[in-house]
Amino acid sequence: MKTVMNALLDQGKQTDVLLAEDLKDLASHLGNYGRSVMWVFDTNTAKLFKQLPPSHVVLESGELSKTFSSLERILSCSLDEGLARDGRIIGFGGGVVCDMSAFAASIYMRGCRLTLVPTTLLAMVDASLGGKTAIDFRGMKNMVGSFYPASEVLVSIDTLRTLSDKEFLNGLAEVIKHALLSQDEELYKFLLVKKNEILSRDTQTLSQLVELSLLVKKWYIEQDPTETKGIRQALNLGHTFAHALESSSHFGSWGHGAAVAWGTCRALEAGVALGVTDKAYASGATKLFKSYGYDIEHRIGRGDWIEFRDHLLKDKKKLDGKVRFVLLTAQGKAVLQPLDMPLVQHLVIAKPIF
Amino acid sequence: MKTVMNALLDQGKQTDVLLAEDLKDLASHLGNYGRSVMWVFDTNTAKLFKQLPPSHVVLESGELSKTFSSLERILSCSLDEGLARDGRIIGFGGGVVCDMSAFAASIYMRGCRLTLVPTTLLAMVDASLGGKTAIDFRGMKNMVGSFYPASEVLVSIDTLRTLSDKEFLNGLAEVIKHALLSQDEELYKFLLVKKNEILSRDTQTLSQLVELSLLVKKWYIEQDPTETKGIRQALNLGHTFAHALESSSHFGSWGHGAAVAWGTCRALEAGVALGVTDKAYASGATKLFKSYGYDIEHRIGRGDWIEFRDHLLKDKKKLDGKVRFVLLTAQGKAVLQPLDMPLVQHLVIAKPIF
Repeated sequence: MKTVMNALLDQGKQTDVLLAEDLKDLASHLGNYGRSVMWVFDTNTAKLFKQLPPSHVVLESGELSKTFSSLERILSCSLDEGLARDGRIIGFGGGVVCDMSAFAASIYMRGCRLTLVPTTLLAMVDASLGGKTAIDFRGMKNMVGSFYPASEVLVSIDTLRTLSDKEFLNGLAEVIKHALLSQDEELYKFLLVKKNEILSRDTQTLSQLVELSLLVKKWYIEQDPTETKGIRQALNLGHTFAHALESSSHFGSWGHGAAVAWGTCRALEAGVALGVTDKAYASGATKLFKSYGYDIEHRIGRGDWIEFRDHLLKDKKKLDGKVRFVLLTAQGKAVLQPLDMPLVQHLVIAKPIF
Repeated sequence: MKTVMNALLDQGKQTDVLLAEDLKDLASHLGNYGRSVMWVFDTNTAKLFKQLPPSHVVLESGELSKTFSSLERILSCSLDEGLARDGRIIGFGGGVVCDMSAFAASIYMRGCRLTLVPTTLLAMVDASLGGKTAIDFRGMKNMVGSFYPASEVLVSIDTLRTLSDKEFLNGLAEVIKHALLSQDEELYKFLLVKKNEILSRDTQTLSQLVELSLLVKKWYIEQDPTETKGIRQALNLGHTFAHALESSSHFGSWGHGAAVAWGTCRALEAGVALGVTDKAYASGATKLFKSYGYDIEHRIGRGDWIEFRDHLLKDKKKLDGKVRFVLLTAQGKAVLQPLDMPLVQHLVIAKPIF
């Protein structure tokens, strides 16, 4: 295992991100934890093991598992296994498994140890770093959760080989979003130049991609660990639109990343419409998303607008009753501002500007 | 309202404790919060209002309400009322209401604002200050929760007038425990000298008592806000015994405070048996509990030992598989150490030493 970075979060908590050479390297590191651990898998990641470790929970894969009921299962199994506060929960899977294991670890006896092993690109570059934990609640995405950084995040690029193209693109959308939010252009250029290697999932290229993407996230979360300073919220670029799309499609056809790609393009258009985002920059970024195959021109049906708007209005970034959107004033420079509903309606149901 | 103290907790969070002159003063302060609030009452505290505020949840009073299901009710009502992250949950009640409202506030959108209005002595001197939130889980007390300090704790001594004697003594046990843990003898002496005024619930005396008691708690929690340094755990004096007693009586006949009085005396006896606690000090402290009417000589039946022990073994203070007890080496000086089960058995089922 090679240490890729250490992210310093609140209360002096530190997350170490380690990169495994291969699955064997990962397994050997995990073996060192000893016995006081509770593993959390989903039905996909459980298949990676010939024999599951003795203390484990296997959740049904997919967003529909991200519930209080799954959370109670993890807590209940931990209690059955006699896990104490110095015990460790290991979340082994994608974003759902990572978010839920972390939430469970944050409230089990008011907080036990936590290791995350993200096995999707989305979980590697987003869910596993930064301490945000969550479950969905009454159909609202990530409505209930906590801030609780993992002590270790273990990344094995090998696990990305088995992902479907759809799932791989789910994660890549967050990487492109990070490229737009980066303080330099390295990741943006990497995405432009290395498209073929990325899409063919070359191990070396993906290692670099994940590291560059994590560095952007680290920059934001270290400055604003609990999202109270208005800095970290930049990472929500595209997410207000995306969550509403996901919620109103009932987490069915739209994966999180695909929705984020779509939502980021809507946020770029909103910025252009208000004169805060440079048109050429927005156009270039939109083309980058398009070049990786995202359906960014999707528009919601007129009949679905009311449900979409109702989901928008429940966004967590509300202040004084107004939903605020992340807009880009330039590469790496975000502002948070409310949008008029007629403009939003125009952006999501009219024809694309670009 | 008069500011009694500010406790500085982790992440730069501060809890202001304010003392109301009377219920009118309290109501006027609460009126200033405006509309984006969700009130949590129990069936007892709801009776204090002629008309309840528009957004509220009323929980069945008592420990049996401290469940995931009540937690979901608070979250669900908050969502229904459109409460955003800058909204506020106000917990108005005893320890159960305070612990649950605070837990709900800590996870609603990963944390909204929180005010606690403790209406029992127990909640005033213990549950409302220090940021520990919790629910019971599978019959285990406070097994699931978080650290989330309230921004304001509003104390109105008037609310103590309506408590039953049993409920009043429930809180007083924590006050006596604080007296033993204090770095000076002021609270201990106050309890010895002012017994009649305390038991007759003289307002002025109770204001002083609550303030002195909170100062002791403040001393411990400021040094160790998330109980990671082994300092704050001193506040658990008597609680390992007490929780096991409460759990094995299924939260029936034993109130928390009465169990803490009993448990603290067992911890003093354990200290004497091991030679770490001075016998005269332990005897004096035991007499103080007795003088306030606690049933400290209770012993559990031989047939109940196995269940009691099983509950003990699930204590959160376990390290490397061993349950650790808080013992006193002197006034204000605590140590955390494992006890042999035969000694524990002897202490809880044999005859009292004093």
